[in-house]
Amino acid sequence: MTEPSSALPVTPSDIDLAARVVAPFAVRTPLLSFPILDERAGTRVFLKPEMLQRTGSFKFRGAFNRLSAIPRDKFGGGVVAYSSGNHAQGVAAAAKILNMRATIVMPSDAPMTKRERTKGYGAEVVLYDRDREDREAIAHEIAGKRGATLVRPYDDPFVIAGQGTVGREIAEDMAALGIAPDIVVAPASGGGLVAGVATAIKARYPQAVLMSAEPEGFDDHARSLRAGKREAHHAEGRTICDALMAAIPGEITFAVNSKLLSHGVTASDAEVGAAVGFAYRELKLVVEPGGAIGLAALLAGRIDARGKNVVIVLSGGNVDADLFAKLVA
Amino acid sequence: MTEPSSALPVTPSDIDLAARVVAPFAVRTPLLSFPILDERAGTRVFLKPEMLQRTGSFKFRGAFNRLSAIPRDKFGGGVVAYSSGNHAQGVAAAAKILNMRATIVMPSDAPMTKRERTKGYGAEVVLYDRDREDREAIAHEIAGKRGATLVRPYDDPFVIAGQGTVGREIAEDMAALGIAPDIVVAPASGGGLVAGVATAIKARYPQAVLMSAEPEGFDDHARSLRAGKREAHHAEGRTICDALMAAIPGEITFAVNSKLLSHGVTASDAEVGAAVGFAYRELKLVVEPGGAIGLAALLAGRIDARGKNVVIVLSGGNVDADLFAKLVA
Repeated sequence: MTEPSSALPVTPSDIDLAARVVAPFAVRTPLLSFPILDERAGTRVFLKPEMLQRTGSFKFRGAFNRLSAIPRDKFGGGVVAYSSGNHAQGVAAAAKILNMRATIVMPSDAPMTKRERTKGYGAEVVLYDRDREDREAIAHEIAGKRGATLVRPYDDPFVIAGQGTVGREIAEDMAALGIAPDIVVAPASGGGLVAGVATAIKARYPQAVLMSAEPEGFDDHARSLRAGKREAHHAEGRTICDALMAAIPGEITFAVNSKLLSHGVTASDAEVGAAVGFAYRELKLVVEPGGAIGLAALLAGRIDARGKNVVIVLSGGNVDADLFAKLVA
Repeated sequence: MTEPSSALPVTPSDIDLAARVVAPFAVRTPLLSFPILDERAGTRVFLKPEMLQRTGSFKFRGAFNRLSAIPRDKFGGGVVAYSSGNHAQGVAAAAKILNMRATIVMPSDAPMTKRERTKGYGAEVVLYDRDREDREAIAHEIAGKRGATLVRPYDDPFVIAGQGTVGREIAEDMAALGIAPDIVVAPASGGGLVAGVATAIKARYPQAVLMSAEPEGFDDHARSLRAGKREAHHAEGRTICDALMAAIPGEITFAVNSKLLSHGVTASDAEVGAAVGFAYRELKLVVEPGGAIGLAALLAGRIDARGKNVVIVLSGGNVDADLFAKLVA
């Protein structure tokens, strides 16, 4: 078997190892299919529902793999992370299992659900102003003061390898079905999830076409993949995809993604809202806006999927009840 | 292997056959587990999420198995059914696949979601007044006029065998995990689902304790199981569990359930609402009130589950968006 990604910062073997590390604690999420979705998309679609993961998103996988790799003599200092919400919960839940202290730097406009759940796992939450303060600087200061280990949300090989277990499970389940995936789509903010997924999928299915999915405007991966180098998006303001607002792809993640991804797709907030409503009504799944971005792109006809076997990663389901009610009304 | 139910109106072999009939069209739903649910319940819990089934509830299984058994020379007359909503959709979707005409008699207060979805499958919907009209009489009249086959919602061996495929899949998946289920709970209205599930589970796990779950007041199964004979419930008015309002267990279903079930459990509407909210927040699953009745009983401490391996059937997810928003707020 060729391993096209063996020279990259994260290898399929790193993901195999991560799978062993996270197995006792992460949920082995199923691969789902729905006749009504196949009809709507005009092709066979398989969903990887990471909202069913511990903490309600895939982020637990990478966080647990990263924390498990911290040397024992550093455990006492605990961990610090910055995150708009899902990485926060992943780190907090992993730290609780490993008996480590966790401090999370979160934007003050993060969904209440995400803030409350992060505290619920026993982490200390420090809020900052998204427009005026530098979350990395705040996190570095806390790390320095406490001897804590900084857990980056995506630009870390252990984090990417942990997220790659999502792709490894997809590959295993598709192999068990005897169906080769033609297209695999995963949401991208900093790009850790799609990098890990691409590494695992390409190891088993080198012909598969991998795509990042982003909110319209917040399309730094789509731009960077076109340009062949890291480029920031030009968006100002907000998107309902609160989890997908990173300004520019990560350095390590883009080293992977520039090699393994075909291109990036986007969807508008209106298309994302429609996808969240479709998932509620027809799939009976609670997907947060950012988690539904790939499904939104598919349903909006932004992926040339006809006749192809398409896998879409639904990355999380942590959405405030009032926004959810509005989107499904 | 002992087959305690081999002398009953539905046998494990009937369910094996039903599994072959429905396999090309029904979704093989996974068995899910969630660390947060295990923690909350203080034991290992496995959920069978039938809201992920075609039409959003288990009812498609029984309906498709029943319609497939109609002699070819009766296909032209189509089918007629009465239902508060989920059986309606199951029959309508099965009829569409089999190219049969379907007429469904539904109460005028059935959730709009269920009425609209039934029409969406191409069925003709005839509304009746739940308090003043006799749905069976209306259905019989239509059946007589059109030469249509009446598809009963539960008191039919083919329907029960179809619903039994839920239990057959649970037994297969638990066997694959190497874990024997100690307790299996399924919602009961007419009792077809729990009868089929009990038949399949008991065939493989004779020691398993089977329970029906009903809304408080609408406890005809709990009463009947205590009395050893079919007894109606004494409730007046409504419950939010619109799918679980049948007045008395079915004759055929009770012949099965009186032999195979241990007893019935109940939960209040408030407990059901809390379970729907828990499923939204923590499991990221859309469960309709009636579908959450077993989970509600578990979370409310109404099942002596500690240290036991518990399987709960979540039977459906067809809930109006405004009620859902209220329950998860």
